[in-house]
Amino acid sequence: MSSRSPYLVGLIGNGVRPSLTPPLHMAEAAALGLDYVYRPIDLLEHDLPATAIGDLLRQARVFGLDALNVTHPCKQLVIEHLDTLSPAAAALGAVNTVLFEPDGRTTGHNTDTTAFETSVRTALPGASLAQVVMLGAGGAGAAVADALARLGTERLAVVDVDQTRAAALATELAERHAATHVESAPHDELSALLATATGVVHCTPTGMADHPGLPFDAVLLHPRLWVADIVYRPLDTALLQAARAAGCRTLDGGHMAVHQAVDAFRLITGIDPDVDRMSRHFRTLVADDEA
Amino acid sequence: MSSRSPYLVGLIGNGVRPSLTPPLHMAEAAALGLDYVYRPIDLLEHDLPATAIGDLLRQARVFGLDALNVTHPCKQLVIEHLDTLSPAAAALGAVNTVLFEPDGRTTGHNTDTTAFETSVRTALPGASLAQVVMLGAGGAGAAVADALARLGTERLAVVDVDQTRAAALATELAERHAATHVESAPHDELSALLATATGVVHCTPTGMADHPGLPFDAVLLHPRLWVADIVYRPLDTALLQAARAAGCRTLDGGHMAVHQAVDAFRLITGIDPDVDRMSRHFRTLVADDEA
Repeated sequence: MSSRSPYLVGLIGNGVRPSLTPPLHMAEAAALGLDYVYRPIDLLEHDLPATAIGDLLRQARVFGLDALNVTHPCKQLVIEHLDTLSPAAAALGAVNTVLFEPDGRTTGHNTDTTAFETSVRTALPGASLAQVVMLGAGGAGAAVADALARLGTERLAVVDVDQTRAAALATELAERHAATHVESAPHDELSALLATATGVVHCTPTGMADHPGLPFDAVLLHPRLWVADIVYRPLDTALLQAARAAGCRTLDGGHMAVHQAVDAFRLITGIDPDVDRMSRHFRTLVADDEA
Repeated sequence: MSSRSPYLVGLIGNGVRPSLTPPLHMAEAAALGLDYVYRPIDLLEHDLPATAIGDLLRQARVFGLDALNVTHPCKQLVIEHLDTLSPAAAALGAVNTVLFEPDGRTTGHNTDTTAFETSVRTALPGASLAQVVMLGAGGAGAAVADALARLGTERLAVVDVDQTRAAALATELAERHAATHVESAPHDELSALLATATGVVHCTPTGMADHPGLPFDAVLLHPRLWVADIVYRPLDTALLQAARAAGCRTLDGGHMAVHQAVDAFRLITGIDPDVDRMSRHFRTLVADDEA
């Protein structure tokens, strides 16, 4: 194998200190016999603004980092400081993984979008993509929407309480994905949209520990609908509980969280990690976290 | 044990890329079952001046480093950026090891001077310290001279081709170490000094691969003299070969190189490394390097 062990990796963003991604990477590396140190670099802890990302990239190279994961609020800001982008990152205009190549160049990738694509393929096989509703048009929604288009979604409705944001994302998606019919819709049309939809993906913070509750009325759920949540703390959100009660197939946010780490780990090391082992470890970490 | 594994450590200085210290620390950590990534941060590679050390310290904290080794040309410059100093580092005015304490404070240590002290104690037991000549009054010489004084040297002669530098070091040493009689002497008095000396320590670059040769005429060597060299690339310098031929006890530079790493490793991890194992590994690394 083409191991460059020991690996040194960082995660840059606001509030990343408690992220599960560093222990997830390190546990898999240990299982593979690789030395791998992965450190959170929390901008808030160090009073650094999002625009510090350019300096941090240069410093990361000086300190010999092999790669960085990048999260909110730097996924867009990092792009101007990179040498090359993967097609998925370029299309999205968002990067969550930066590789420092041996020749000194930096490449930006987006494993959020590849992760959602893999999650649907592997954990919702055969799910109908005839008509999908996506709730939440922020950065996570954009990554999910591109994945839905690549998966072959026929009709995609983008819904957000900020209708301008929903319309802007729908326009971008339509430009990139001719085979998918994309429209935006106001939040109060959700009832009508869900009645005929085959799937719904929830991409807002509702249901997280500090945003409890349901993103829409549970009476809108019906058994012809699959329901995916990208929230993973907790893994079993109120939405997924209601969906199961309504007879829906469900996909929890842990799949996307694990696959973004799987895809980043593969990019960083060139080694295929054990997805099942990473998934088991992730679920243990979340359980410990919730305990 | 109070392990904070995984450890992340850096070495800052000019031309540190090929240093043997990072692999030496990492091999010992691996033998102890610790995850330990140690990266060289070569100022020359990144076009950084010595005065960048303050910024690098702040950045090292952001990137989550546990400790730094610091070498030429930053051992003095680093001091103003630290919160506290060990007594040995404070006395010398030179720091080669910086710890980032969990409470956010930085402490500077000097393991060069403790390393030479331990080397003489363990590898030249019983050597007479009645009258020692030290050749070379630079940073390494200063660290060695303090160690010689702590070891109980009665008379110490400091010799350097730069007589002003020799005199300045002798004055500082005399102020700190009342029990040792310290004097400086011009290079052309070496013959007379060595005739009555019990030991000589060589602290100039002569004998290194790119400065071949002997630092003084081999006819000055005699069997009542022990000879220590701090050059370790190669380990068996022309001086040590001539000293053995003249019947002298000798101490090669590998001892000081290993003990500075041993002492730094202990400071960083709180764990006593296996000195013999580190020494064997160091000699393997040097042999590979010379091959």
